[in-house]
Amino acid sequence: MSLIRQLSTAAADFQTEFERLRHWSAETDAAIEGRVAEILADVRQRGDAAVLDYTARFDRLTVDGMAALEITQADLQEALAAIPAAQREALQAAAKRVRAYHERQLEASGRSWSYRDEDGTLLGQKVTPLDRVGIYVPGGKAAYPSSVLMNAIPAHVAGVQEIIMVVPTPDGVRNPLVLAAAAVAGVHRAFTIGGAQAVAALAYGTATIPRVDKITGPGNAYVASAKKHVFGQVGIDMIAGPSEILVIADGTTPPDWVAMDLFSQAEHDELAQSILLSPDASFLAAVHASMERLLPTLPREAIVRASLQGRGALIHTRSMEEACEISNSIAPEHLEISAAEPARWEPLLRHAGAIFMGAYTSESLGDYCAGPNHVLPTASTARFSSPLGVYDFQKRSSLIEVSEQGAQVLGGIASTLAHGEGLQAHARAAELRLK
Amino acid sequence: MSLIRQLSTAAADFQTEFERLRHWSAETDAAIEGRVAEILADVRQRGDAAVLDYTARFDRLTVDGMAALEITQADLQEALAAIPAAQREALQAAAKRVRAYHERQLEASGRSWSYRDEDGTLLGQKVTPLDRVGIYVPGGKAAYPSSVLMNAIPAHVAGVQEIIMVVPTPDGVRNPLVLAAAAVAGVHRAFTIGGAQAVAALAYGTATIPRVDKITGPGNAYVASAKKHVFGQVGIDMIAGPSEILVIADGTTPPDWVAMDLFSQAEHDELAQSILLSPDASFLAAVHASMERLLPTLPREAIVRASLQGRGALIHTRSMEEACEISNSIAPEHLEISAAEPARWEPLLRHAGAIFMGAYTSESLGDYCAGPNHVLPTASTARFSSPLGVYDFQKRSSLIEVSEQGAQVLGGIASTLAHGEGLQAHARAAELRLK
Repeated sequence: MSLIRQLSTAAADFQTEFERLRHWSAETDAAIEGRVAEILADVRQRGDAAVLDYTARFDRLTVDGMAALEITQADLQEALAAIPAAQREALQAAAKRVRAYHERQLEASGRSWSYRDEDGTLLGQKVTPLDRVGIYVPGGKAAYPSSVLMNAIPAHVAGVQEIIMVVPTPDGVRNPLVLAAAAVAGVHRAFTIGGAQAVAALAYGTATIPRVDKITGPGNAYVASAKKHVFGQVGIDMIAGPSEILVIADGTTPPDWVAMDLFSQAEHDELAQSILLSPDASFLAAVHASMERLLPTLPREAIVRASLQGRGALIHTRSMEEACEISNSIAPEHLEISAAEPARWEPLLRHAGAIFMGAYTSESLGDYCAGPNHVLPTASTARFSSPLGVYDFQKRSSLIEVSEQGAQVLGGIASTLAHGEGLQAHARAAELRLK
Repeated sequence: MSLIRQLSTAAADFQTEFERLRHWSAETDAAIEGRVAEILADVRQRGDAAVLDYTARFDRLTVDGMAALEITQADLQEALAAIPAAQREALQAAAKRVRAYHERQLEASGRSWSYRDEDGTLLGQKVTPLDRVGIYVPGGKAAYPSSVLMNAIPAHVAGVQEIIMVVPTPDGVRNPLVLAAAAVAGVHRAFTIGGAQAVAALAYGTATIPRVDKITGPGNAYVASAKKHVFGQVGIDMIAGPSEILVIADGTTPPDWVAMDLFSQAEHDELAQSILLSPDASFLAAVHASMERLLPTLPREAIVRASLQGRGALIHTRSMEEACEISNSIAPEHLEISAAEPARWEPLLRHAGAIFMGAYTSESLGDYCAGPNHVLPTASTARFSSPLGVYDFQKRSSLIEVSEQGAQVLGGIASTLAHGEGLQAHARAAELRLK
């Protein structure tokens, strides 16, 4: 079997093959949903006792009381001190850059504003941080300290007063890098709980775990289903699907670089998607050769191979423009413009979580330390949603202060429209303010 | 029975009474959810045929084909020309103010930005409009033309190319004001469909109705359940609960004004909530007297009475500061600071959909024409969410262009962290860019 499917937009069956490639169902398993609903109801009713039970059952972590499930600030600081200096410095350097980017985001679009109209009426928008947020950090095999930075730092920059991290620790094994990242990112409290029970504890609150206003961060199918269920009770970020990369290449990037970028997405899991688009057939062949040569050198070869075979593709396009159109129809999470003139193509690209421009901008640099967030919309949701950002940890309130003079003008309009809608008290409230 | 419950924060049972007052369950009916899931699946599979069936069944509107369910631009313009001049002018004046406010919002926080760091690496955020959105407008008894303006205008200002309105027309009766508002707001296409079937058609697309990227607008329990179900497939705005007003009064506003403001919320429906907080007991008594006098003069007296008895309250507080604290714990949709110095109290108020400052700022002025949006977070969701705005019709993409020099610095950090996470392809993608 071929390493990765090879398509051409000029082929008669391209559209069919392309649809097959794109297919991914976000539908959750009904059995999982039912189980999750039970866990949520149980935690809502029994609080800490339920959390202890599920943690014992699912994470094989049995403790006397909730205090044993809290990771103290001292624990976090100890972890930071204990990891190798190179890792500590890398975490701190990454955090510094992520913080700097998100501070720009706050300045550019996250401040309150107001103005007065010609009648002296004040109109504006007050921007305030959320009071308290919960950050879900996956545990076990896929424990990503970088995700701790990417979730906690924007919350911090927004001004959130209490950031609570939950991270499952199966068999009680704590990941020192995750704890160190929490120390660097300024997490305020942390608990070794996970799954739907952790989402429930954060959404409803328990005697020990304070109720939060929003829950962010990725998790498995149980966590995703639980987040969707509590949405409305608390805010949530997007439900994450498998990770994706789409590379548009003009053929000027070293093929090995592009091959490794495709691998770096595929190594996440078997359902991850790596797609390369190029109008240059010989370049596609060169990347394919690079992939065949480099793949056996990867420790995660089996995962990469499954991902590429299942959901990967090299697509020969008629032009760079056509490649951009295809990219728009996919709305990928990560989009690399691996081209000599990325600024020429960037304006054509309407939907993407993050756009990586030029040969030097490997997606992995963005994942860790370029500055922008690595929590990005997947599964075509970049059509309507955005990277995690400072704005996710803020909310806005409209401000209206109508002047006496303004009330005379607005009162007439409001009265007419309110009567038109059959809402007479609305009309009279406006009319009472008329001279 | 008393017109409205009267509480005092000094009473021993205040906390209990207050919790009872606040109770409102956002849980949807399991029977409704099951029915909605069936409708969604049916429309997804059968498309237009299913939409025609449900429209015949639920709206008693039987037509030959989908063309008969489309409201043409000519229909919209005709409706605008046919309504009384006063209504037309009021709609246009309201639209002009709403547009002006949302244009400020776009300028203040909705533009792309970027910068280069010391290594020449470009970092930024590209802001783009959604391609196509759907606006749900309730039909029948509660048909609100103002909601058409409030949903469509921000989408227009954001730059959305195609705004599709759906509005059920039970028995085929079209509301001329709703159609006129759609003409004023610049709706691009409109269909006389509603319920879960309309949400499904917008979310999945049919042969006739194009698939949208986001669905906004209020609806009944079926619509709310359907929106929650398709969330992820498309974007949605918040799920709306019953409307709420909370008034903080220092006693300087004419009692009749405050009474009418409380009524204007209560007249929406029996589950709407109107709460007045004041440290001035004699003012509370005066408002109560105003309410008793004015209530019988209202056409919607029965609804107002049920709402006030079921969920309303006059609360005597120890101070204005305490009133602000209570307001924060409620996070109301509409918050009036009916006081001589509203700017003194505004900074104490952390959670609210919209803040109406000063005696002249009746909530109804904001509902129709002050400029800010009247689609606001309900049921305490102002803790974490915001008024509908231009930002709801935009999405952001991160921009990263790492310079050759930047790749040397970032590559080391990314490589260290990627190895720490066991993601070797990530590490090597970064390392390949090192000199």
